[in-house]
Amino acid sequence: AEVKKIAVIAGDGIGPEVVAEAEKVLKRTEELFGYRFETEHALFGGIAIDEKGTPLPQETLEVCQRADAVLLGAVGGPKWDNNPKELRPETGLLGIRKALGLFSNLRPAVVFDCLKDASTLKPEVLEGTDLIVVRELTGGIYFGEKYRRDTEYGQEAVDTSSYNVKEVERIVRQAFEIAGKRRKKLASVDKANVLETSRLWREVVNRVAPEYPDVELEHVLVDNCAMQLLRRPSSFDVIVTENMFGDILSDEAAMLTGSIGMLASASLGEGSFGLYEPVHGSAPDIAGQNLANPIATILSVALMFRMTFGYADAADAIEAAVADVLNAGHRTSDIATNKSTAVGTEAMGDLIIAAM
Amino acid sequence: AEVKKIAVIAGDGIGPEVVAEAEKVLKRTEELFGYRFETEHALFGGIAIDEKGTPLPQETLEVCQRADAVLLGAVGGPKWDNNPKELRPETGLLGIRKALGLFSNLRPAVVFDCLKDASTLKPEVLEGTDLIVVRELTGGIYFGEKYRRDTEYGQEAVDTSSYNVKEVERIVRQAFEIAGKRRKKLASVDKANVLETSRLWREVVNRVAPEYPDVELEHVLVDNCAMQLLRRPSSFDVIVTENMFGDILSDEAAMLTGSIGMLASASLGEGSFGLYEPVHGSAPDIAGQNLANPIATILSVALMFRMTFGYADAADAIEAAVADVLNAGHRTSDIATNKSTAVGTEAMGDLIIAAM
Ligand SMILES: CC(C)[C@H](C(=O)O)[C@@H](O)C(=O)O
Ligand SMILES: CC(C)[C@H](C(=O)O)[C@@H](O)C(=O)O
Repeated sequence: AEVKKIAVIAGDGIGPEVVAEAEKVLKRTEELFGYRFETEHALFGGIAIDEKGTPLPQETLEVCQRADAVLLGAVGGPKWDNNPKELRPETGLLGIRKALGLFSNLRPAVVFDCLKDASTLKPEVLEGTDLIVVRELTGGIYFGEKYRRDTEYGQEAVDTSSYNVKEVERIVRQAFEIAGKRRKKLASVDKANVLETSRLWREVVNRVAPEYPDVELEHVLVDNCAMQLLRRPSSFDVIVTENMFGDILSDEAAMLTGSIGMLASASLGEGSFGLYEPVHGSAPDIAGQNLANPIATILSVALMFRMTFGYADAADAIEAAVADVLNAGHRTSDIATNKSTAVGTEAMGDLIIAAM
Repeated sequence: AEVKKIAVIAGDGIGPEVVAEAEKVLKRTEELFGYRFETEHALFGGIAIDEKGTPLPQETLEVCQRADAVLLGAVGGPKWDNNPKELRPETGLLGIRKALGLFSNLRPAVVFDCLKDASTLKPEVLEGTDLIVVRELTGGIYFGEKYRRDTEYGQEAVDTSSYNVKEVERIVRQAFEIAGKRRKKLASVDKANVLETSRLWREVVNRVAPEYPDVELEHVLVDNCAMQLLRRPSSFDVIVTENMFGDILSDEAAMLTGSIGMLASASLGEGSFGLYEPVHGSAPDIAGQNLANPIATILSVALMFRMTFGYADAADAIEAAVADVLNAGHRTSDIATNKSTAVGTEAMGDLIIAAM
């Protein structure tokens, strides 16, 4: 088989531990399916600030650019939280998204059967919840001009949000395509009663919609969406929205499933290239203790196989292995009811590759 | 007693019905406590568009300006949703906030005992939830410059968000004051890892904080807050945030209580003047059918008594009357388990004034 190049960015906190388990899965996939992977490791985030003086070294960017996909652990931690902007892990995150043209962030929010009770929502409300938030990732207020100026009322800070037709169209089309392959329902979220960017957004959605006649479209205001996610989570299929709203709503959606430690995400651009990472953060409090749950990162590999490489067989095998291991009762401590029988990060990785 | 002038804006949908019940409460308060109210009605929102050609007629603004407080029902409805911007009810809402200098929106989110089960959250998670969102209401991206321009990628829309030190300071101080009179915990919500306005916000919060040493302060990123509201709602006391984040988070917080049809809100400026309204919308689908629940509007009157007039005795009487009526088992259909025994809007108002 053709060799696929994967840039591996372990990052900070529990990142290196969970990524190590995902790499075992890559190796096991080669053995079982005959696929070939070449991994190249790169420094990013806090560790890159410490070792290279910048969260996104040029070299790391090049490793990503010559790869077919990127696997990312997690970045950030209190150590760098008070650094100046250029020396913060988040700045690297925004930089890598922009530099790699990753304009779309897909965050599936599903409920794992074994974790049904972990949600703070009532089981009957959660029943059947399986949605995906498609978040625009390289536009909006994240990347607009920012500055300070002096006024008679003291310093003033300014952020600018902008979207052009092309930026909206490509993400909206992608969301329609995804919805077309799922339950065929798309909720476009905006604040068109207040924002000009939202009015443009809604115009583009309405212009594109007739090309996808089989997808049922609803426009939802962002404040209302924050409510409806709580009230009727299972009624959503695909939600598409701009960068800032997507940041908030995708986290709300992930949390309501109760399965946040198990969720994978993909950031995509034009073509098949993608960056895959768990939804959870770097959890510095449990780093280095063999306590982290590697499942979200392992499922990020499955998502990579499915979306970037088209290796559906291997993706299926990984997902089935995860389900088998959970059904057999194995848990890392974050998802264990009885902490005393919980397995560690490495043991969970081993169980999953054994089940593949 | 001194005559208090109240501008009464019934608005659209169920607005007139719920406001009529609140006016009965005003009258009953005069009889019971000897306070004196003079009400002046004004057109606003959709009905003002229909009758005066603008959502916020100059006359309405003047009625509000010569009043001591404003009672608002609800505005908006599908009839006006596709109007051009100047002819939309929301434009009136933004206009009245700005014109009256209402920079602070207080949205208490509490759980009514009789509605505990109405929430989609598990009762044990909701237990003890009693928080208030203090939302900045006249700044940020709502009121910044907005425009379109042509680019090589099609039209581009731009929104601008700005905050100066004075704007942040006054809302933050108010939030600290409120927290000081409650459980003494303040969560300041921003996106300081991305936005310049948030960095200024956080600087001001940190500068003001030492003046309130008895209030425990935490900074929470907006995406994390959307999650924590779901995970540990009862741990929040006062949440202070900017306009757009406050719009989203206050709706999320209200919905998780399950009591959204019962929640009152206040919009305040400098001094004691305030605008009071229910958190719920104009519910055009049930308008004119004597089905609406007037409790949130009646509780908005109690909030007005407490915050603008300092009539704690009358506020207590109203709140106790509402509790008594609910404890006696009376329900409007929105909160009734058995719809066939539900009472109408007018009957609920009558029960409450009888219980005062
Ligand atoms: C760390 C931060 C800049 C980032 C974002 O807001 O995009 C994070 O919250 C995310 O969702 O990936
Ligand atoms: C109608 C709309 C403009 C308004 C807002 O966003 O402020 C509403 O959602 C609210 O919260 O009062």
